[in-house]
Amino acid sequence: MFNKLSIGLWVMDSAYNYDTSKDAALQKLEKASEIEGLNGVELVYPTHINEKNYKEVKRFCSDKNIQVMSVNPNVWDGEDFQKGAFTSGDPAARKRAVDYSKTAVDLGKELGAGQMCLWPGQDGFDYPFQDNYEDIWQYEMDGIKAVADYDKNYKIAIEYKAREPRSHILLDSTSTVLMFSKLINAENAGVNLDFGHALLARENPGEAVVKAMNANKLFGVHINDNYGSTDEDMIFASVHHIETLEFIYYLKKLKYDGWISQEFDARKVDPIKACSHCFNTLKVFEDIADKIDMKALLEAQKNSDSLESQKIIARAMLVAN
Amino acid sequence: MFNKLSIGLWVMDSAYNYDTSKDAALQKLEKASEIEGLNGVELVYPTHINEKNYKEVKRFCSDKNIQVMSVNPNVWDGEDFQKGAFTSGDPAARKRAVDYSKTAVDLGKELGAGQMCLWPGQDGFDYPFQDNYEDIWQYEMDGIKAVADYDKNYKIAIEYKAREPRSHILLDSTSTVLMFSKLINAENAGVNLDFGHALLARENPGEAVVKAMNANKLFGVHINDNYGSTDEDMIFASVHHIETLEFIYYLKKLKYDGWISQEFDARKVDPIKACSHCFNTLKVFEDIADKIDMKALLEAQKNSDSLESQKIIARAMLVAN
Amino acid sequence: MFNKLSIGLWVMDSAYNYDTSKDAALQKLEKASEIEGLNGVELVYPTHINEKNYKEVKRFCSDKNIQVMSVNPNVWDGEDFQKGAFTSGDPAARKRAVDYSKTAVDLGKELGAGQMCLWPGQDGFDYPFQDNYEDIWQYEMDGIKAVADYDKNYKIAIEYKAREPRSHILLDSTSTVLMFSKLINAENAGVNLDFGHALLARENPGEAVVKAMNANKLFGVHINDNYGSTDEDMIFASVHHIETLEFIYYLKKLKYDGWISQEFDARKVDPIKACSHCFNTLKVFEDIADKIDMKALLEAQKNSDSLESQKIIARAMLVAN
Amino acid sequence: MFNKLSIGLWVMDSAYNYDTSKDAALQKLEKASEIEGLNGVELVYPTHINEKNYKEVKRFCSDKNIQVMSVNPNVWDGEDFQKGAFTSGDPAARKRAVDYSKTAVDLGKELGAGQMCLWPGQDGFDYPFQDNYEDIWQYEMDGIKAVADYDKNYKIAIEYKAREPRSHILLDSTSTVLMFSKLINAENAGVNLDFGHALLARENPGEAVVKAMNANKLFGVHINDNYGSTDEDMIFASVHHIETLEFIYYLKKLKYDGWISQEFDARKVDPIKACSHCFNTLKVFEDIADKIDMKALLEAQKNSDSLESQKIIARAMLVAN
Repeated sequence: MFNKLSIGLWVMDSAYNYDTSKDAALQKLEKASEIEGLNGVELVYPTHINEKNYKEVKRFCSDKNIQVMSVNPNVWDGEDFQKGAFTSGDPAARKRAVDYSKTAVDLGKELGAGQMCLWPGQDGFDYPFQDNYEDIWQYEMDGIKAVADYDKNYKIAIEYKAREPRSHILLDSTSTVLMFSKLINAENAGVNLDFGHALLARENPGEAVVKAMNANKLFGVHINDNYGSTDEDMIFASVHHIETLEFIYYLKKLKYDGWISQEFDARKVDPIKACSHCFNTLKVFEDIADKIDMKALLEAQKNSDSLESQKIIARAMLVAN
Repeated sequence: MFNKLSIGLWVMDSAYNYDTSKDAALQKLEKASEIEGLNGVELVYPTHINEKNYKEVKRFCSDKNIQVMSVNPNVWDGEDFQKGAFTSGDPAARKRAVDYSKTAVDLGKELGAGQMCLWPGQDGFDYPFQDNYEDIWQYEMDGIKAVADYDKNYKIAIEYKAREPRSHILLDSTSTVLMFSKLINAENAGVNLDFGHALLARENPGEAVVKAMNANKLFGVHINDNYGSTDEDMIFASVHHIETLEFIYYLKKLKYDGWISQEFDARKVDPIKACSHCFNTLKVFEDIADKIDMKALLEAQKNSDSLESQKIIARAMLVAN
Repeated sequence: MFNKLSIGLWVMDSAYNYDTSKDAALQKLEKASEIEGLNGVELVYPTHINEKNYKEVKRFCSDKNIQVMSVNPNVWDGEDFQKGAFTSGDPAARKRAVDYSKTAVDLGKELGAGQMCLWPGQDGFDYPFQDNYEDIWQYEMDGIKAVADYDKNYKIAIEYKAREPRSHILLDSTSTVLMFSKLINAENAGVNLDFGHALLARENPGEAVVKAMNANKLFGVHINDNYGSTDEDMIFASVHHIETLEFIYYLKKLKYDGWISQEFDARKVDPIKACSHCFNTLKVFEDIADKIDMKALLEAQKNSDSLESQKIIARAMLVAN
Repeated sequence: MFNKLSIGLWVMDSAYNYDTSKDAALQKLEKASEIEGLNGVELVYPTHINEKNYKEVKRFCSDKNIQVMSVNPNVWDGEDFQKGAFTSGDPAARKRAVDYSKTAVDLGKELGAGQMCLWPGQDGFDYPFQDNYEDIWQYEMDGIKAVADYDKNYKIAIEYKAREPRSHILLDSTSTVLMFSKLINAENAGVNLDFGHALLARENPGEAVVKAMNANKLFGVHINDNYGSTDEDMIFASVHHIETLEFIYYLKKLKYDGWISQEFDARKVDPIKACSHCFNTLKVFEDIADKIDMKALLEAQKNSDSLESQKIIARAMLVAN
């Protein structure tokens, strides 16, 4: 069974609006510690963890036996990043994005994390002709390479997303990140595969797992769901049951041993109960994946037999079969 | 349990390309008769049934105890319909669309059908500025009203579709058909709800059932699936499990007693086995719907409690819960 | 030329985050008064106008010769509306939505407006099975009918939207609003056609104009743009040039004489300059529409001649032809 | 001005259904020779050109001064490819795909072409769990590498497409092709950028040009248009004006010197006139691109100034500015 189970700490924001107050981190960690099955947490620098509170956070997590598995630089928030962070036309903004990321590496190492989830969500454009694509692609390469090179043993798990908040984000798909990590020649840059972002990119999430793991580049996984057009950040396995199952199936088949982290919008529900439910659902899907008659499935797949494979999956997944 | 179970006869085309030869109808009916659970069939005029073969078809279906539940005029095929049938700029094409439809009514009555599925799939446009929308909307109203008025006791189940083969089809959603039946003041014009077309229109299929049944206008149902962008005409419940369940749940809750007909692309599988599988899957989903703790669900829905409703559904649907 | 040109006052929020402070209305109106070509404004109750400041607002607008053309009840904001306003499971929230709307009518009449733009953007659902569609559709009808009946001479321009902030919003398309206004039997309920929302609903905006005006139900227009998947609220005519032209063409052809209001996100630009630019662009598109050889176009449309119509439009629209 | 202007010969199929008869090639070439501005042609093996007719075709093209710029293996048609060509579970089908492609190289060289457009449109899957992604990705690599290695001086311009006819096609985007050409370590494998396929992949086509040319991998271009969900293969610049302009702008800015080929559905129009119109429209867009005040644009882009860039573009593109 998967046993590196974490959440992004921001999921604990139960208020109607996200609470970005920096000193709320310990309260959120306290809440997170009540989630059944949790043993890791992703923190955002400087929102949740920073130069001032990192010792407290470290102590608290150690006491609660929660692993800080990732420290993620906030390169999307704030007015100077609204037209790009690593790709901003303003050199000061670009520099801040790199500096934030390096500090996130430092703090991550201090807390025993081995990776960051880097979401360059502002690095793109809103309008046709708004940006010179030659420039912004160059900036993106320069900036992220500087981060990756800062410590070549520290993993940079790039979270791609096709759009939102920008109408187009440069690093938009699994393929783009894989291509990009070659472009910047960074062994330690890979993919953070967010299930919902795979759907936004109209990828088949299971196939995305195969693409990334074939390249030894699946560094992190976010679980959630959405309807495919907008990133609604929904509860895991609430819409896409068979894609979720296939995603879990390939994670297990290819022996993924990284973290599986929850990233969804829990503001309209009790976040502790919701996260507990999601980890439980993850176990349900692992059980179903184990119930699949894999020998029969692989045989059916040899002939791309869609009817037989549908039957095999239904037997494993659906009550009343 | 649902017991009016049919297929569109075209599903029996097992060749790589659809077989449009008119005399192949009996062979297809022979094949259809082998499907487990089938008791009805939808025929296309003049492709499957026509002035020449209707007596034979009638006798065969009677012998096999298969109800001809719908005779559908082919108003999409052929060169003169490629820029519209009821909406064509050519009065002769418009006339043919109406004439075909009236003959389909006549033949349908002769064979004991109570309805047609009318798919005006060519009635729309490909390009901006290609058509004058005032004209084509008027033509659509005139033509379909003439069909509906031909026999006010015969149901015209309009199958909407947002696009394909045209880039835009006029009757594109449940709401448009409901609005349209008011516009032409035709009590006997209603909705043929194709599950996949609901997805193309980005409707929630269960909600579409409620909208159509609230208006007493759900005249027919097609079951299948797709990925939401293109009408892949896939095997029932192969992609959208929870939407399928909700669709079945509302059909049962609102006591839908019309036909449920299979409409999908079986050309890469054995169509008899595939149709048998789909009817079996329909039963599985009926069973799951029956297993839902409806009292608890309705209570959770009073507060729009998404977490609790997710749990209730998962318990009913997923193995291993 | 169109001469009822307005903006939604919220467009003047130039801060990175929307300024929802209620006392900022006069400052925004001051800014709005600098926009070239503006002669009307849409206000939100109670955000911009309310029981406390309406006399001041009235005096200011009168002095500046700005018509308050619409007062829109805020039925989307605030924690008690996050799971629905008119459709909330909480009767108090439903009541507040109706009360807000009635007050918006009262204030609108006090200020000489003839209509509200009613955006029931929270009235829908996030998850499958989250809500009982029978209930929420009934609530939506009851609530909006109560608003429409409050003063049958006051126009309720319903702004549909397919999604955002909910994954599904009940009133999602032109057709749904037209159907809905029949359902609640309200002559004074019609459509506020937001160009970008038409795109989200994958409507052809020009065709939507025809549908709504055929029913005498086009009560308001919002101009903006987006990429079709997410409501980016972009500058008018920044992406969809030919659809914008066709939209303007039909507004002119069918002699729309209501307001045309700007609704877009101006937070990354100078909002005064951006609004002035958009009104200027509107004039450009009116000029282009006037340049279309309409006789030739109507002739080409008789045969759905897509090549000829493309040539006619290109000659009118593109430099260098 | 661009001066390598070609069409895919299949565009000359003016019949309602595509004419796949092999001996019709010369008739289509005769028609193609009437297109204004044409100086090249893409042929499909064995549909248009094959072992039997290649000498005739060569002579004809030489006489008419038409360059055969590409010979494309038909790896999508026929029953044995319906579940994959290079990725088929059937080794004989995989072998045929490779053999066809090698013959296409041989014939291409015989006729003076320097490249093929390789569209592995069947290489993907229809259903979740239908195929083992590890296998089909391996087959895709093996097959296309064999083709690329057959003559390392011959360009393999891979045409990606996200879907249709399969629900998911493996090589689905510019990024995937760029990543893939690295994976198979083939210098001579690159991108054939079909404008409409870029839209289906929700790429910004101009940005795709930059990505591909940065890697020296833009080997071919297909021009057309669609609405973004379905590949309607529409007339060039009929829907996406500003994206088309940006596409042309970057092709010129980055000095693309390959072929620009028409690929669209001309079956409802006169194909000769339609192709002539499209080449003329291409010139119009080149003129507009030349009219853009590039100095001002580049300055605006330094600050991602969307309002200023919109103004600059409108001045260059729209009549009446």
